[in-house]
Amino acid sequence: MVILGIDPGTATTGYGLIEIGKQEIMVKSWGLIETDKNGFKEHRLEKIYEETTALIKLHKPDCFVIEKVFFATNAKTAIAVGQAQGVMLLAAGKCGIEIFEYAPGTIKKVITGSGKSNKKEVQIHVRKILGNKVKSQKHKKTHFDNAADALAIALTHAQTINNQSSITNNQKQVKS
Amino acid sequence: MVILGIDPGTATTGYGLIEIGKQEIMVKSWGLIETDKNGFKEHRLEKIYEETTALIKLHKPDCFVIEKVFFATNAKTAIAVGQAQGVMLLAAGKCGIEIFEYAPGTIKKVITGSGKSNKKEVQIHVRKILGNKVKSQKHKKTHFDNAADALAIALTHAQTINNQSSITNNQKQVKS
Repeated sequence: MVILGIDPGTATTGYGLIEIGKQEIMVKSWGLIETDKNGFKEHRLEKIYEETTALIKLHKPDCFVIEKVFFATNAKTAIAVGQAQGVMLLAAGKCGIEIFEYAPGTIKKVITGSGKSNKKEVQIHVRKILGNKVKSQKHKKTHFDNAADALAIALTHAQTINNQSSITNNQKQVKS
Repeated sequence: MVILGIDPGTATTGYGLIEIGKQEIMVKSWGLIETDKNGFKEHRLEKIYEETTALIKLHKPDCFVIEKVFFATNAKTAIAVGQAQGVMLLAAGKCGIEIFEYAPGTIKKVITGSGKSNKKEVQIHVRKILGNKVKSQKHKKTHFDNAADALAIALTHAQTINNQSSITNNQKQVKS
């Protein structure tokens, strides 16, 4: 099973693709979809839509997982995140992929053990779970922390569907 | 010039199409895009996207106008409105239509003369501006008040680009 985790925003959307094998979780890909801050909104949304569709066609994920947003700094921010989510959900829906949502507290709890962890702690745990091999992919190094939230979301779904006590235990060997 | 005004929501999106002629403003169409509250989010967004695209292809508007959202009851509501906006902006962008946004206070001020009017007052003024002929279209009667916000948005843009003192004066004869 291949899981696509998404951390959406109009300027920067993080994505992370993991594959659950019989013995291991593999990182298929991660990265960012970036749009020009000075560009027209509709062109930025079109870029997000087209790149999401391309990602789905390339990696053929079985499911698309996003964070359920409950709080936002202000309505403007929430609207912008919603707009990016909307076109990505449309891309996933048109490709016939199942969609799942997890609350931020659930994601933090699964990844770090505490629902109150901060962003940095989540990044550290994602890197720990997914191994050090990701560091060697220099061309993607700068993206990894930015895509960590998206990978955390994908890992949360993997954990949930596997119904195991922990993905950090030694029953699964994680590699990039 | 044909203007498409949009009042988006996941469950109910109001739309209003007006045409600015040399001597008059005509209402080309108005109505609702409704989605099943129990349906999957991605299917609902797909319906909004497809119906918006169909509306644009049918009526060929020159511009697409929405309200700029600054406040929302909560993040969940703002996200839902943003998702609907996102797929509609994508539809407009893919069709190459220009997009405009107006603040709620600006719309109210243009339509009723006061930036602090309530929803009902906007509806009454839109009906007054667009004439009584809309009442005779029985099959659309129930939609009119729901689509009034969308028509108000379209009328605000018409007023702005015409740079006239008021669209409610007698220089323009408004008909449905």
